[in-house]
Amino acid sequence: MEKETDNNKEKRQAREELGFASLDKFRPARTGAAEAIFCPGKTSLQIAEIMRELAEIHPDENIMATRATAEDYQVVKGLVPEAVYDTVANVIALVRNQCPPLGEGNTIAIVTAGTADIPVAEEAAVTAELLGNPVDRIYDVGVAGIHRLFDKLDRIRDANVVIVVAGMEAALASVVGGLVSSPVIAVPTHIGYGANFEGLTALLSMLNSCANGIGVVNIDNGYGAACLASKINKRA
Amino acid sequence: MEKETDNNKEKRQAREELGFASLDKFRPARTGAAEAIFCPGKTSLQIAEIMRELAEIHPDENIMATRATAEDYQVVKGLVPEAVYDTVANVIALVRNQCPPLGEGNTIAIVTAGTADIPVAEEAAVTAELLGNPVDRIYDVGVAGIHRLFDKLDRIRDANVVIVVAGMEAALASVVGGLVSSPVIAVPTHIGYGANFEGLTALLSMLNSCANGIGVVNIDNGYGAACLASKINKRA
Amino acid sequence: MEKETDNNKEKRQAREELGFASLDKFRPARTGAAEAIFCPGKTSLQIAEIMRELAEIHPDENIMATRATAEDYQVVKGLVPEAVYDTVANVIALVRNQCPPLGEGNTIAIVTAGTADIPVAEEAAVTAELLGNPVDRIYDVGVAGIHRLFDKLDRIRDANVVIVVAGMEAALASVVGGLVSSPVIAVPTHIGYGANFEGLTALLSMLNSCANGIGVVNIDNGYGAACLASKINKRA
Amino acid sequence: MEKETDNNKEKRQAREELGFASLDKFRPARTGAAEAIFCPGKTSLQIAEIMRELAEIHPDENIMATRATAEDYQVVKGLVPEAVYDTVANVIALVRNQCPPLGEGNTIAIVTAGTADIPVAEEAAVTAELLGNPVDRIYDVGVAGIHRLFDKLDRIRDANVVIVVAGMEAALASVVGGLVSSPVIAVPTHIGYGANFEGLTALLSMLNSCANGIGVVNIDNGYGAACLASKINKRA
Amino acid sequence: MEKETDNNKEKRQAREELGFASLDKFRPARTGAAEAIFCPGKTSLQIAEIMRELAEIHPDENIMATRATAEDYQVVKGLVPEAVYDTVANVIALVRNQCPPLGEGNTIAIVTAGTADIPVAEEAAVTAELLGNPVDRIYDVGVAGIHRLFDKLDRIRDANVVIVVAGMEAALASVVGGLVSSPVIAVPTHIGYGANFEGLTALLSMLNSCANGIGVVNIDNGYGAACLASKINKRA
Amino acid sequence: MEKETDNNKEKRQAREELGFASLDKFRPARTGAAEAIFCPGKTSLQIAEIMRELAEIHPDENIMATRATAEDYQVVKGLVPEAVYDTVANVIALVRNQCPPLGEGNTIAIVTAGTADIPVAEEAAVTAELLGNPVDRIYDVGVAGIHRLFDKLDRIRDANVVIVVAGMEAALASVVGGLVSSPVIAVPTHIGYGANFEGLTALLSMLNSCANGIGVVNIDNGYGAACLASKINKRA
Amino acid sequence: MEKETDNNKEKRQAREELGFASLDKFRPARTGAAEAIFCPGKTSLQIAEIMRELAEIHPDENIMATRATAEDYQVVKGLVPEAVYDTVANVIALVRNQCPPLGEGNTIAIVTAGTADIPVAEEAAVTAELLGNPVDRIYDVGVAGIHRLFDKLDRIRDANVVIVVAGMEAALASVVGGLVSSPVIAVPTHIGYGANFEGLTALLSMLNSCANGIGVVNIDNGYGAACLASKINKRA
Amino acid sequence: MEKETDNNKEKRQAREELGFASLDKFRPARTGAAEAIFCPGKTSLQIAEIMRELAEIHPDENIMATRATAEDYQVVKGLVPEAVYDTVANVIALVRNQCPPLGEGNTIAIVTAGTADIPVAEEAAVTAELLGNPVDRIYDVGVAGIHRLFDKLDRIRDANVVIVVAGMEAALASVVGGLVSSPVIAVPTHIGYGANFEGLTALLSMLNSCANGIGVVNIDNGYGAACLASKINKRA
Repeated sequence: MEKETDNNKEKRQAREELGFASLDKFRPARTGAAEAIFCPGKTSLQIAEIMRELAEIHPDENIMATRATAEDYQVVKGLVPEAVYDTVANVIALVRNQCPPLGEGNTIAIVTAGTADIPVAEEAAVTAELLGNPVDRIYDVGVAGIHRLFDKLDRIRDANVVIVVAGMEAALASVVGGLVSSPVIAVPTHIGYGANFEGLTALLSMLNSCANGIGVVNIDNGYGAACLASKINKRA
Repeated sequence: MEKETDNNKEKRQAREELGFASLDKFRPARTGAAEAIFCPGKTSLQIAEIMRELAEIHPDENIMATRATAEDYQVVKGLVPEAVYDTVANVIALVRNQCPPLGEGNTIAIVTAGTADIPVAEEAAVTAELLGNPVDRIYDVGVAGIHRLFDKLDRIRDANVVIVVAGMEAALASVVGGLVSSPVIAVPTHIGYGANFEGLTALLSMLNSCANGIGVVNIDNGYGAACLASKINKRA
Repeated sequence: MEKETDNNKEKRQAREELGFASLDKFRPARTGAAEAIFCPGKTSLQIAEIMRELAEIHPDENIMATRATAEDYQVVKGLVPEAVYDTVANVIALVRNQCPPLGEGNTIAIVTAGTADIPVAEEAAVTAELLGNPVDRIYDVGVAGIHRLFDKLDRIRDANVVIVVAGMEAALASVVGGLVSSPVIAVPTHIGYGANFEGLTALLSMLNSCANGIGVVNIDNGYGAACLASKINKRA
Repeated sequence: MEKETDNNKEKRQAREELGFASLDKFRPARTGAAEAIFCPGKTSLQIAEIMRELAEIHPDENIMATRATAEDYQVVKGLVPEAVYDTVANVIALVRNQCPPLGEGNTIAIVTAGTADIPVAEEAAVTAELLGNPVDRIYDVGVAGIHRLFDKLDRIRDANVVIVVAGMEAALASVVGGLVSSPVIAVPTHIGYGANFEGLTALLSMLNSCANGIGVVNIDNGYGAACLASKINKRA
Repeated sequence: MEKETDNNKEKRQAREELGFASLDKFRPARTGAAEAIFCPGKTSLQIAEIMRELAEIHPDENIMATRATAEDYQVVKGLVPEAVYDTVANVIALVRNQCPPLGEGNTIAIVTAGTADIPVAEEAAVTAELLGNPVDRIYDVGVAGIHRLFDKLDRIRDANVVIVVAGMEAALASVVGGLVSSPVIAVPTHIGYGANFEGLTALLSMLNSCANGIGVVNIDNGYGAACLASKINKRA
Repeated sequence: MEKETDNNKEKRQAREELGFASLDKFRPARTGAAEAIFCPGKTSLQIAEIMRELAEIHPDENIMATRATAEDYQVVKGLVPEAVYDTVANVIALVRNQCPPLGEGNTIAIVTAGTADIPVAEEAAVTAELLGNPVDRIYDVGVAGIHRLFDKLDRIRDANVVIVVAGMEAALASVVGGLVSSPVIAVPTHIGYGANFEGLTALLSMLNSCANGIGVVNIDNGYGAACLASKINKRA
Repeated sequence: MEKETDNNKEKRQAREELGFASLDKFRPARTGAAEAIFCPGKTSLQIAEIMRELAEIHPDENIMATRATAEDYQVVKGLVPEAVYDTVANVIALVRNQCPPLGEGNTIAIVTAGTADIPVAEEAAVTAELLGNPVDRIYDVGVAGIHRLFDKLDRIRDANVVIVVAGMEAALASVVGGLVSSPVIAVPTHIGYGANFEGLTALLSMLNSCANGIGVVNIDNGYGAACLASKINKRA
Repeated sequence: MEKETDNNKEKRQAREELGFASLDKFRPARTGAAEAIFCPGKTSLQIAEIMRELAEIHPDENIMATRATAEDYQVVKGLVPEAVYDTVANVIALVRNQCPPLGEGNTIAIVTAGTADIPVAEEAAVTAELLGNPVDRIYDVGVAGIHRLFDKLDRIRDANVVIVVAGMEAALASVVGGLVSSPVIAVPTHIGYGANFEGLTALLSMLNSCANGIGVVNIDNGYGAACLASKINKRA
């Protein structure tokens, strides 16, 4: 519950307008999650100041910044000392953990084709957890050795939503999509040889999946996939 | 309920193997919906024969064929007389309607930016209904006149899942995505002037939405969007 | 064996130079197969005249024309009455069948993801057979229902070379490539929704396969795939 | 007013031809603004020498160089000591400010979707101001939280020309275009996840806007947008 | 002036909601021009019904439909008998001409590179005239014979706004942009040999113009160019 | 020799301005060849009228129209009865042949990879001949059977300029470029399987040739290649 | 032959599951070669740990990592001291050489167009040798000086499989393909001027080869080409 | 004239085969110019060794390496001490200057649109001069200030061949092409804002020029343009 003196309130309202950023106070009520900071193109100081303000505006919510560098984190820590940094997911987070997490029946399975897809998968996993969802990580089960996938099919089928993270030809999304009844969210990654064109091939492949019921997000957008998965979970 | 003599069973098993098609008997159990027939590239006769076999294999399920032409329908009707044809959605369907539909709390809102997007929206709507979901159609509310959208925002917010169908720059998906807490599925359409490149611009636009929690399907793929929406509904 | 009078020889040499075409007499000796006629862009009469000349230059070889239309065939039949036309593969062929075909150990398995990929697969199958190879057709086993593939895996593994024909996201090539020890040749097809971009997605997907040992040919190029498969067979 | 001895004149005429650059003396008279220096691909010394010559040729005009680096500025300052450098806009400018600026009725509103779009917006803002236009900066009002835009709609509607700067899917351009009666100039930026393709998505999105009356400039081309806006203003 | 009984008003309000289209009653007030109907993707009947409703909602405005076919016109004429059809511009219009047109000082010059660009230029010209602007047509003055352009430069310089319509490499936009002080709007057309890629080359060329102050619209979008030109004129 | 009454002159000057076309009277003097009519996008009547005017303005020059259809020719013949039509090259020409042709030392060799490239090659050949150049046609010598090329290498080496016309991967341009000392002009054609992308592959291939000294023209642009070849010849 | 204590076995089984990687124990049996490590996107430590585990799981197989950097090798050497590093091919290998290599009749010829293609060719050569194949390197014989190719044609024709490695326009693949009867595998490289687009031109060129029987792999994918060549050899 | 002992000859023949490079001894006789070394992708040592060998094989020819870095030059100088380095053109050259240069009647005009295009223009200029051609440099005369071009038109018209070097929209090529009767060679450069796509726009623009008789080379390929210009000159 938000509690504050009038004085604080005024200060905070003023701060919602940073000059370089218009914070979105009502986003949790409107769309179910607080605004996350997408770091590329912002200075470390801008990131830190936005984070501090979001922390004040939403005192009970988890606050996060994606695609953050170690340098960004150094600056953020100066203004938001409790912030933590996940070096695989490249996420800076301020964790409050006050809302009770969802139960096992709402597990999100995050499946990767290869080891190199893990940073994107971890962006998804960390986001999903910050949004209150239990996560089951199932990594490196690409179709070149399809038995690895079948070994873990039960875990994938037990999930309420499945996120498939894959680069190269991203065939894993289609194979999983044909084997489960839950909604599948596909995240193409930029991993691959030349003609992957920085993830374009994986993206197109997932969009053209012969398995129906797959929703695709942008290349390497683990954050977006987790947001969608979490919204689905909260419908359940 | 499936009832049959051994004799029928054998005949049917034989037919599951048509030479040109391997039917997928267990798809409803595995992924929650029977196989649909994607007509382009198939002859009308192939479509008709596959439809007849699917009808026998899944005696209680609704069976459908997408992107069907009037010519296809003439041939299908010869083999599957009860099949009906929706000339806007270009869908041939065999409707059994035996499963009780989901309630209003599971309404799927289907929103289009323009009038020319309606055929794709109707492919989604017809599919969603055949899969047992209530549908609320909200058409021609693109952002060039954004008040049209706000007039209908309550209906959109009441839906459990929202499908946004838009061509051109597809800005509607982002605007809706920023206003609702339910999962949003975006369907780019091929509608637009030259540099829409047959839907590529709408597709890229939706994938790059600044609003999170949007899952994108292939260009003009109303069918796929409805499958995903229905899977989300059945999680609920 | 070629037998002819000097008179015939001269006439034939003259004809090897048609004005609009320079026939390649020594191609069988050099590359293992006679020149095939690629019809698009040629008039029906040009096709017919080239076919007649190839038939004379190579009196014992099978002669073929790909991507032929029914109209082309009408004209060809006038000049080469024994020519036959395959309406699925769109191939006109003059069959001599004098070379003993290869044995079962050299079977080429031709596998398709869907029914709509069959015309391309048949171009490959007909070509492979005209070049003397036994063919095993395994159609409509795409990964949306992957058990269909496993049901037929033994036949695929028994083949000396495997040709995979698939459109959409072409995931089948990777899955097959991860399951067999024989060389896999992948043929992307133009089949699919909008963002398949006339086969580009399937092409890129196959080139980026996470399964190694896959050689890719041009979109819809069943003929080229069969030539490569046959060359591999003749090495064996 | 230009005043000079014949001696100076000759020296200057000679200098208009630098060997590596042909300066365009009459551009202000012809097109309404002096030539600006586009720095990429030029050496710092070339930039400095061109700037010095432009400063002499146009003694009363503001002179500017875009996409300049801090290194460029160090060299320019050596030759043109009064030049200043804007580190956000990456503009080097020599400001004379002798022409009376336009009044408030000619305000150019510069609107960005996000914080990361600010450097491009500032290139536009600085250029517009150097050309004598009043500027109203309205930053970070992207459609993910559309109420932020409506809060500032009056300021946007008050402007004589509106420049919209946005990356990702650039939906803001369409939304603004549907809400104002003034001309809208859209500047796509390179900001976004993978499938933004360095601004291509934003560019295509703006070109396909369903709102009419939007003129688009090149990716990140804040300078060009301001030139067009200023020309429109000077028509007024 | 709008006059009507309450009864009519109700009927009209009902009709503003056609089921397949949500008409935008307040667009003239908001953006300065009534909604135009973009015909591709709509049935002739939809076009006709939308036109009839727009005609009632905006009794004093000119109403228009772009990219209309002769077939569309036949159907429209049945419902809106006063509508006329321009077979070069492919525009159906209902002309009321009640607002006094702008004076010569607000002339829009429409310049084409070639004869084949005329249909797009006429779409712009007809639109501009329906919006009340005087138009000066200057056709076939492409840079291959640049003296043709110089012969007419005075007329171009006299215009308040210049629209340049060009296909192929679209160099005309840059040359004109370097010679005039008024705002230039560039319309790429699809005209050209193979590597024009249906207007993509002209589009990219115009976006990259070395002449500043050029705003670009979509390929073949004469309508959009005229809307922007008219908005600029109404600022003047 | 031009002879005319003042009256005729005036009439002709008037006609140089057709309304839809500004004819370029001085092009022969300026660039060495009269304007040719590029037919696509023009109506048959426009083509015919332009041809008649060009015929009057340039009474001694050969006049030509490229990419003309049989329908165009029917209309042209009505206005310019002496015009002839080449159904392979798709060229309408009005032949005066008054300038003495160049000698054998200025032969242009036109070389094609395949039979399907002949229409483009003939557009080049007819153009070159109309411009007064002797032409040596060497067709169907693509690198799949490279001995065909070597058989004719002497003829190719004897030419003063070589035009290579090829589709698919266009390797012939590089091979010829490495074997001759004369300038090579490369014309990509749209001939090929799917991933030729209507000539894009051939175009890119020729631009990237490892053999130096190759100038490339647009896809299927036989006309342009001949113009360049003729200009080179006239330098000699 | 694999020999181990139960204790070792358990330890190894545990290790097959590294958390970030699921190793594929049965790949040699299934597809004929052990899994190789594709380094990009993996940390040096991940590479080292995967290599150590693969080394234990497959005690008799050669183990390799492609696209490895010198930094990766330093870390790998710490865990797998016997590993060696090829600085041209960028391959780290653990060589056991226990399987008897294939004989000269199974030579793989690796042919490059230029010197700059050698790193890719060496990736192929090293891979082929590790898989037990004799290799004949024939470098820098591009078609700009085609006699260099003919000088070495006998060696190329003697090979059982030919790998052609080429950038730029990659014409060498077609020329070789037209001259040999063995299967040809084409590897496009990223070498070339601007419009090579990082290998896209070479890739498209090879896919469109007019010589049949060419299988193409991804840009710079020497490893994949060698895998396919080796599979073909093992069929022989 | 080549003079050498048998001993030297043998040594040299051996060296013609460097292992990593097959030198092309007869290229001057065959195509009119010695092989140049394209540096990217080669090590500095490879460049130096190839240069030393070319210097020995062609003792009287100028030898050159393009796209060389300062580092490359340091290594080359160690092996070929007389080599010089042009830091603008990035060319290393060994100049013998023994062939008498062509006269003024064979001047090649090299024209650039901007200052940033100069490095590419200098690659062309240096190459042309090394091949014996007089060069006239005319820089920074782009169409944004077209009078700069007209001021220098006489010099351009006096040239026997014109090379136009331009980035951005490259309109200069078309304008020049419409004004001169000599052959025009167009070199697109990578200079420009975002949607120039590293020179793609300039390339496409030049290929689509409405002025005929323009031959285009690869992006930034000044060397190739100069080779073609020199071949044309030597025809003259």
